[in-house]
Amino acid sequence: MKKFEEKTIRSKPIFNGKIITVQVDEVELPDGKRSKREIVHHPGAVALIALTEENKIVMVEQYRKPLERSLLEIPAGKLETGEEPAVTAERELEEETGYQAGKLEYITSFYTSPGFANEIIHIYLANQLSKIKNPAKTDEDEFVELTELTLEEAVDCMKNKRICDAKTVYALQYLQLLERK
Amino acid sequence: MKKFEEKTIRSKPIFNGKIITVQVDEVELPDGKRSKREIVHHPGAVALIALTEENKIVMVEQYRKPLERSLLEIPAGKLETGEEPAVTAERELEEETGYQAGKLEYITSFYTSPGFANEIIHIYLANQLSKIKNPAKTDEDEFVELTELTLEEAVDCMKNKRICDAKTVYALQYLQLLERK
Repeated sequence: MKKFEEKTIRSKPIFNGKIITVQVDEVELPDGKRSKREIVHHPGAVALIALTEENKIVMVEQYRKPLERSLLEIPAGKLETGEEPAVTAERELEEETGYQAGKLEYITSFYTSPGFANEIIHIYLANQLSKIKNPAKTDEDEFVELTELTLEEAVDCMKNKRICDAKTVYALQYLQLLERK
Repeated sequence: MKKFEEKTIRSKPIFNGKIITVQVDEVELPDGKRSKREIVHHPGAVALIALTEENKIVMVEQYRKPLERSLLEIPAGKLETGEEPAVTAERELEEETGYQAGKLEYITSFYTSPGFANEIIHIYLANQLSKIKNPAKTDEDEFVELTELTLEEAVDCMKNKRICDAKTVYALQYLQLLERK
């Protein structure tokens, strides 16, 4: 998968943040010409399709500063350095929802925005949920509110745009496809 | 949708690129404490589920520098300033594939990565495709190769990870759901 490879001539660091780093690469194009690519590095993330005994979907509402609004999303979180995605998944499920999963199954991974960012999201299906007595807390600058929705209610939220991010839309389509199998 | 709103105390510009801009906002959290948010602004994009007369999906392969590999994706492109998404959709379809659509239908929009970026993708369904005699060219630093796949072939590409970006995975799920209606 190296078709039309763009070789790096030089790479200019722009920003080294807590979550993202930004660089501009000067590249040699397949025709020998040069161009620039603005690139955001992100550690990657996991997201969970977590289903309760009553087959409800566990969702979190949180404020998303880049959009200046809150969204209803499936639970998710960034990978720590060197952390296995399955471990991140268990940790984020506990921190964001207070649940642990009796069964955790890897579904798929996808890049969110390959034109400018390398962020990848690994999706897990979490079943056989039980409440943890003293769950670890979320990061102290994270405020989330838990909701549990039927698939039908969640699809309504997608229609009225309370749900409108890629991983959550993926999750709802995944569950709709399961239902229609 | 302002739950847990984070008020901006100050905003520090970091980078003003051709495609993205980056800033760090100092915010006041709901509990009165302060934190920082790293934010990438992106103009937004459209993507097209374009179906040929033979019901094949029009796909483009291109190199994605942030990933250092090529991906097979549905055609897509960034919004120009002030441009209506439907106009961008027609333009990108012509430039990337040489097709025009007899029928262009808006499906939905979603944010790709709301934790750090405001990028939104508007998805269109393009039908009744016909080849344009002298189509406008893609940007001169864009190299794409056209492929047309059945849904089954595309799903295989998803399994072997030639397809693994959010908008294209969305498109394939959308078509699978249509089939099972």
